[in-house]
Amino acid sequence: MTRILLTIAYDGTDFCGFQLQPGLRSVEGELNAAITKLTGEEMTVIGASRTDSGVHALGNAAVFDTESSIPPERFANALNTVLPDDVRAVASREVAPDWHPRHQNCEKTYIYRVDCGYVPSPMDSRYAMHFPRNLDVTRMQEAAVRFLGEHDFTSFSNPKSQVLMAGGSPVRTITGIRVKQENTFGSNEGSDGRFGELVTIEVTGTGFLYNMVRIMAGTLLDVGTGRFTADDVTAMLEAKDRTKAGMTAEAKGLCLKEIRWQ
Amino acid sequence: MTRILLTIAYDGTDFCGFQLQPGLRSVEGELNAAITKLTGEEMTVIGASRTDSGVHALGNAAVFDTESSIPPERFANALNTVLPDDVRAVASREVAPDWHPRHQNCEKTYIYRVDCGYVPSPMDSRYAMHFPRNLDVTRMQEAAVRFLGEHDFTSFSNPKSQVLMAGGSPVRTITGIRVKQENTFGSNEGSDGRFGELVTIEVTGTGFLYNMVRIMAGTLLDVGTGRFTADDVTAMLEAKDRTKAGMTAEAKGLCLKEIRWQ
Repeated sequence: MTRILLTIAYDGTDFCGFQLQPGLRSVEGELNAAITKLTGEEMTVIGASRTDSGVHALGNAAVFDTESSIPPERFANALNTVLPDDVRAVASREVAPDWHPRHQNCEKTYIYRVDCGYVPSPMDSRYAMHFPRNLDVTRMQEAAVRFLGEHDFTSFSNPKSQVLMAGGSPVRTITGIRVKQENTFGSNEGSDGRFGELVTIEVTGTGFLYNMVRIMAGTLLDVGTGRFTADDVTAMLEAKDRTKAGMTAEAKGLCLKEIRWQ
Repeated sequence: MTRILLTIAYDGTDFCGFQLQPGLRSVEGELNAAITKLTGEEMTVIGASRTDSGVHALGNAAVFDTESSIPPERFANALNTVLPDDVRAVASREVAPDWHPRHQNCEKTYIYRVDCGYVPSPMDSRYAMHFPRNLDVTRMQEAAVRFLGEHDFTSFSNPKSQVLMAGGSPVRTITGIRVKQENTFGSNEGSDGRFGELVTIEVTGTGFLYNMVRIMAGTLLDVGTGRFTADDVTAMLEAKDRTKAGMTAEAKGLCLKEIRWQ
């Protein structure tokens, strides 16, 4: 028996989320089916991050156990021959038989993408939240650094978080955060000057509560418009009350970029 | 009667192309229908660039004549209320009654996007050609500048070009070209190091023959792999023979970024 760690990427648009749900199309379901097709074994993968419907991944991960003779490093390519186009196995390797992606220390990096043009770019409609406001990126960055370090993130978690409801700790550590103005394809003349431009929020931490990145992003957007200040963000963290923080930004803007195992 | 110039953006994936084709979904057809819905007038827009199926645009243009009392600058927003999500009107303004987008001097900028990771990124699958090779971007840039200036582009045109078949000139002027390595979402550990990375070719000129940018891009890709040299590109231009140049890169990697009217 060999335990294989898969790095996986997917366009979350047409999935109910990572996790298996009866009658719905899930990333987990596609992975299970693809591995079964390849090995003949009945399969239930264990995912690292059970992303919501619409959330994308470039570097999510999953493990599974197999008796197959396919070399561990070859599994990714073999799976890509049977996976649908919107899920790709990026890499594969053997890990210890007791290695569990949710019990392993790691750093995760998420990227949140905002299309702030007045008219939304059709090419970003699946991969960015449309928020047609003039955003002050410097102001957003100044507020973003208030999230750095170890904090109680109760205000920035969905109260339905399984971890919190089971009495788990709401304390998490953010090790990096950066707000940036970019344009994927570039903007053009004759537009409002923001067409095709994105604001991205990239955040790295050792763990995240349910909806945490999306609430952080939603709050920073309202910092960008001038509604909240950096001090408001600090006060929100201290309040430990979800109703004090900003909105939950849309799922489709979120992408799990990378997990670095420690 | 007022002539309106529209700047339009679209995701070309689900269109037969810009131009109306009976029984198929075209950008032109959607624009005509949307203007009719808004004004009640029967409508046939005149497009600036009749892009192929799968080709995208952030800044294509079209004109139409209307008796409507909608202020010219307001047309874009009004149209967005009736257009499908994959076509957006970015801006609108009045132009002279005889202003014709294909008879007007202009500079067009195209961007060609290549996903050169071994495993294709699911988020770029509609907007980039997958070309899983290690590309030497410096070498590509050195060859790309050979296209600068005025040249006979017969070797870089589809021989079925209507312009060429009608005896039109194959001479075009390229005013800017740039090859760049980027990553939209960023790459990650555990991949082959290129996952999620793009090579983009941005090219500006006063006019382009049919498939010209795609053949230039296809040729530069084979420069990037070492198959062709910069001197080969010069020889291809001089040969005035389509069979001497490289492949036609896929439609889905191409985006008409901007038209600057002169």
